[in-house]
Amino acid sequence: MGFVLWGFLTDFFTYETTKSVVVKSWSVGIINRIVQLLIITYFVGWVFIHEKAYQSSDTNIESSVMTKVKGFGYLQNQNQNENYQNRVMDVADYVSPPQGSGVFCIITKLIVTENQFQGRCTEVSTHSNACFSQCFLPLLSYTPGVITGACLKNSNESHGMCEMEGWCPAENDAIKIEPMDVNTFTIFIKNSIRFPLFNVTRGNFPPTMTANEIKKCKYHPEDNPLCPIFRVGDVLNYTGQNITELLSKGGEIGINIQWECNLDLNIEKCIPKYSFTRLDAPFAKNAVSKGYNFRYAKYFKTENGTEFRTLHKAFAIRFDVMVTGKAGKFNTIPTMINLVAAFTSIGLGAVLCDIILLNFLKGAEQYKAKKFEEVLLFMAQQHVLYKSHHYQQHKEIFI
Amino acid sequence: MGFVLWGFLTDFFTYETTKSVVVKSWSVGIINRIVQLLIITYFVGWVFIHEKAYQSSDTNIESSVMTKVKGFGYLQNQNQNENYQNRVMDVADYVSPPQGSGVFCIITKLIVTENQFQGRCTEVSTHSNACFSQCFLPLLSYTPGVITGACLKNSNESHGMCEMEGWCPAENDAIKIEPMDVNTFTIFIKNSIRFPLFNVTRGNFPPTMTANEIKKCKYHPEDNPLCPIFRVGDVLNYTGQNITELLSKGGEIGINIQWECNLDLNIEKCIPKYSFTRLDAPFAKNAVSKGYNFRYAKYFKTENGTEFRTLHKAFAIRFDVMVTGKAGKFNTIPTMINLVAAFTSIGLGAVLCDIILLNFLKGAEQYKAKKFEEVLLFMAQQHVLYKSHHYQQHKEIFI
Amino acid sequence: MGFVLWGFLTDFFTYETTKSVVVKSWSVGIINRIVQLLIITYFVGWVFIHEKAYQSSDTNIESSVMTKVKGFGYLQNQNQNENYQNRVMDVADYVSPPQGSGVFCIITKLIVTENQFQGRCTEVSTHSNACFSQCFLPLLSYTPGVITGACLKNSNESHGMCEMEGWCPAENDAIKIEPMDVNTFTIFIKNSIRFPLFNVTRGNFPPTMTANEIKKCKYHPEDNPLCPIFRVGDVLNYTGQNITELLSKGGEIGINIQWECNLDLNIEKCIPKYSFTRLDAPFAKNAVSKGYNFRYAKYFKTENGTEFRTLHKAFAIRFDVMVTGKAGKFNTIPTMINLVAAFTSIGLGAVLCDIILLNFLKGAEQYKAKKFEEVLLFMAQQHVLYKSHHYQQHKEIFI
Repeated sequence: MGFVLWGFLTDFFTYETTKSVVVKSWSVGIINRIVQLLIITYFVGWVFIHEKAYQSSDTNIESSVMTKVKGFGYLQNQNQNENYQNRVMDVADYVSPPQGSGVFCIITKLIVTENQFQGRCTEVSTHSNACFSQCFLPLLSYTPGVITGACLKNSNESHGMCEMEGWCPAENDAIKIEPMDVNTFTIFIKNSIRFPLFNVTRGNFPPTMTANEIKKCKYHPEDNPLCPIFRVGDVLNYTGQNITELLSKGGEIGINIQWECNLDLNIEKCIPKYSFTRLDAPFAKNAVSKGYNFRYAKYFKTENGTEFRTLHKAFAIRFDVMVTGKAGKFNTIPTMINLVAAFTSIGLGAVLCDIILLNFLKGAEQYKAKKFEEVLLFMAQQHVLYKSHHYQQHKEIFI
Repeated sequence: MGFVLWGFLTDFFTYETTKSVVVKSWSVGIINRIVQLLIITYFVGWVFIHEKAYQSSDTNIESSVMTKVKGFGYLQNQNQNENYQNRVMDVADYVSPPQGSGVFCIITKLIVTENQFQGRCTEVSTHSNACFSQCFLPLLSYTPGVITGACLKNSNESHGMCEMEGWCPAENDAIKIEPMDVNTFTIFIKNSIRFPLFNVTRGNFPPTMTANEIKKCKYHPEDNPLCPIFRVGDVLNYTGQNITELLSKGGEIGINIQWECNLDLNIEKCIPKYSFTRLDAPFAKNAVSKGYNFRYAKYFKTENGTEFRTLHKAFAIRFDVMVTGKAGKFNTIPTMINLVAAFTSIGLGAVLCDIILLNFLKGAEQYKAKKFEEVLLFMAQQHVLYKSHHYQQHKEIFI
Repeated sequence: MGFVLWGFLTDFFTYETTKSVVVKSWSVGIINRIVQLLIITYFVGWVFIHEKAYQSSDTNIESSVMTKVKGFGYLQNQNQNENYQNRVMDVADYVSPPQGSGVFCIITKLIVTENQFQGRCTEVSTHSNACFSQCFLPLLSYTPGVITGACLKNSNESHGMCEMEGWCPAENDAIKIEPMDVNTFTIFIKNSIRFPLFNVTRGNFPPTMTANEIKKCKYHPEDNPLCPIFRVGDVLNYTGQNITELLSKGGEIGINIQWECNLDLNIEKCIPKYSFTRLDAPFAKNAVSKGYNFRYAKYFKTENGTEFRTLHKAFAIRFDVMVTGKAGKFNTIPTMINLVAAFTSIGLGAVLCDIILLNFLKGAEQYKAKKFEEVLLFMAQQHVLYKSHHYQQHKEIFI
């Protein structure tokens, strides 16, 4: 009994390692070391230092954006609207929605249709279509109401126009207006982020600037890359787009805040990087829906209680503040997986050397005899015995 | 000195490889190759081809969504509100918020309470509770003001009602109204995305269609899966929900844009896939808060400057355009890790074969003697010497 | 021909395995097993059980949030605004935007400037600057219009004031008002999420509660951690901030919904976890832009059609409902990579034992002779022959 246990223990605590063949050859030895050096260089240089494979990373951030626009502008005169002649527009007038969220519009141009009441009237035709085709073909332009089907005589034009039911008079969006100059407006962005995986919270104010310095600064890519106040004209310029067209037709601008944080370093180095793109750029090839506009209404009541409205077609520059982040921090699991991959890869260098040794070197036969030892398990006796005998001879010679 | 250096160099440039035992046995040989074949098949077929383990992937996208709704509808008559009898509603009336963001509501039903002034009045009881319980139990229904505690006689009903302070008269949301028909409305979606990791930007317009074709198309899952214009009725149908109930009680619809891009292929194959779900589906079991509604007010002023308002309880269908994306591109690190794992796994096949060889084959003893060579390091001398002797005998026989 | 094929087949179906050296030594054997045990424990305990390395995970979720605020409050009196004296505010008055999205504001304080018309007037100076510096230095405080450059005499103060053009009279935001008490308001949050990778959809209502129970519950971190109704006062308390200051200056509160789901377990265990933070906390050091406020206007018309407005500077608490999620599910690829890493790592234990054996044990020389077999490939003949001869002697002795 004790003997069996003793046998089991001595068996269990034996140490098994591979038997190695040491080849003393300049060519193979040098090839081997060079291959190993290349593999080590690749792992250390690219995988570990450049790609930071020893870190686990988190790209899934929580972000909260608060924006505040400042500035005022003149809305150019339109003949038909007394209320909007040279009106001074302030934040409460041109920012929509007003709450200061991460997506907001600065209105640059307003086509205003005042005093609309529910009723029946002639549709304004911007396409000079005859009534028939207008009534029966799908209408692509904005139709503020239901086409009743009646065809009205229009004194101005030779062809008929449709009668429609809804908010009257209908909007005429063919008129030309100069857009408001918004270049001098400023956008202030407050962005706080959190990497939930690492529980790290950061804000976009530069830690080295005082409150007063921040209030007075203007963002500049080189001179002041951390200032959170942006001049609208600069932002439009950075996108490299035609500003006149942007102001006139509207557009969508992306303000990108990129956080790339190496949390193994000082947390103060985890700072944002701003970039600016025109979001409708991928649609540039295609002429559908150029620009950006939307319609909204202000509602009023007459003395006797009838509701009427002022319709606005607003051409606006929409700003999307988009926050992306990536944080990396040392973690044992990726480190270990990559280390094991590295060590194993170094071993793979031997595969190459073996191929060279076994096939191309002078001593190949000798090496083969040393590296491989055969065991015959009574398979295909005749044939193998011959080879076995052949081998034995080799052995006698070389050992 | 030179001799020492020479010794060091020759030692350094030696090449060390494992000594192998070659077993010539049909059974083990075939098992070995089959196991290797299975492992290679798994890696090539599943890991590399199906799961694309040679790519690094990015699911963290930047996305910007612009929407535009078109269409008009009749709001059904309500006895008490002259202003809202058969009103024609256009985009400026029923889309909220108006800016064309990725989350927007189409109002289908409005319960309007006109001419509310600050003051004191009787609360409208929809639950026919006595005043006492109303005043002292928490009120779950919408209470537009402060309950003063006074109990008023109500001629219509046998029980008392509470007096409240706030905007008067109180809203009565128990009235029945037919919802507006929104099935023919269309939603136009412009979506531009960017994969920051690969710096790839894409838009959701089909590149093979002209601007005019896009303007006229309607999305259809099979016939026109890339058209960015969606009929509201179709979208509601695709979710497989009861449309009548949706229109009447409101609801939340998710329009999913899924980008799955293999950036190793032609970039033109990186196209969106649309799908539609009812977002409140997970709450279907639970009767809390069915549908979707919200309250908003329009403010007016009398001639003498007193503010009053029109309260709207809007039942709406809220559309959430949700964009998810995944891009994959060849990257050396995952490729290498998986290749190393593959090669190492092939080696693991040997473990299985060793177990078979060492235990189940006829020549197992012979094989053991070949595979293992013992070294005695003066451990438990007596016992080991015996085994060692035993081994030597074997060796003499087999070598 | 057949012979060649036969030879090829027997060669192909040979099985090659490493030749091992078995060392019977207590010290090395025990060290070897301990190292192996440590590696296995690390992999099983940390990598597989704790870090769930057998799962593929998805942190990229689709989420839709619907909110509903309930409650009413008194807006404190301001001398100058009759319309806002002790006004009862309800949801339609204080929630902005009204649609019930994931980001919404509860207005706590309103600075109201009634009856603003387009025109010219004196700017309200809150900084007591002389006209000159006001006109020529950039104005950091809110300027509702264009400074005309004219310097007006002001009877109240000793220094001049600027004349401005725009909405008149100008806002005076220096007045002190008591904020509205919003502590008793409740926020109801409906959140449905989807993990696109696993196509799992979940909602945030507790499955064990009935609709009536949910309607009546209040969230509490320990007693009722799944209730989706939150008292505003509680939420503000959980953030650990000064509530009085929050109500008075406004602020940004993050309501975090965290989904951490192990999809290998019962899906019913995939439940949300709520947490609350003050989002402007990272800016606490820096006094720029404390609090949260925005401006919006209500527009009115006089009998003769002139538009005028009421400007509101709203101090608000903004709530950002932020949803993060992580789901894990068994997947063969990470499992396999980690298993291979584990097996390979166990093999690495041998490296340590080899170092000990080859250098520190008594039988090192003996062990070396067994482990390494040399092959001479005619390299540096003289020198090597000597060593080789030396080796042969060893062999003769030990074998």
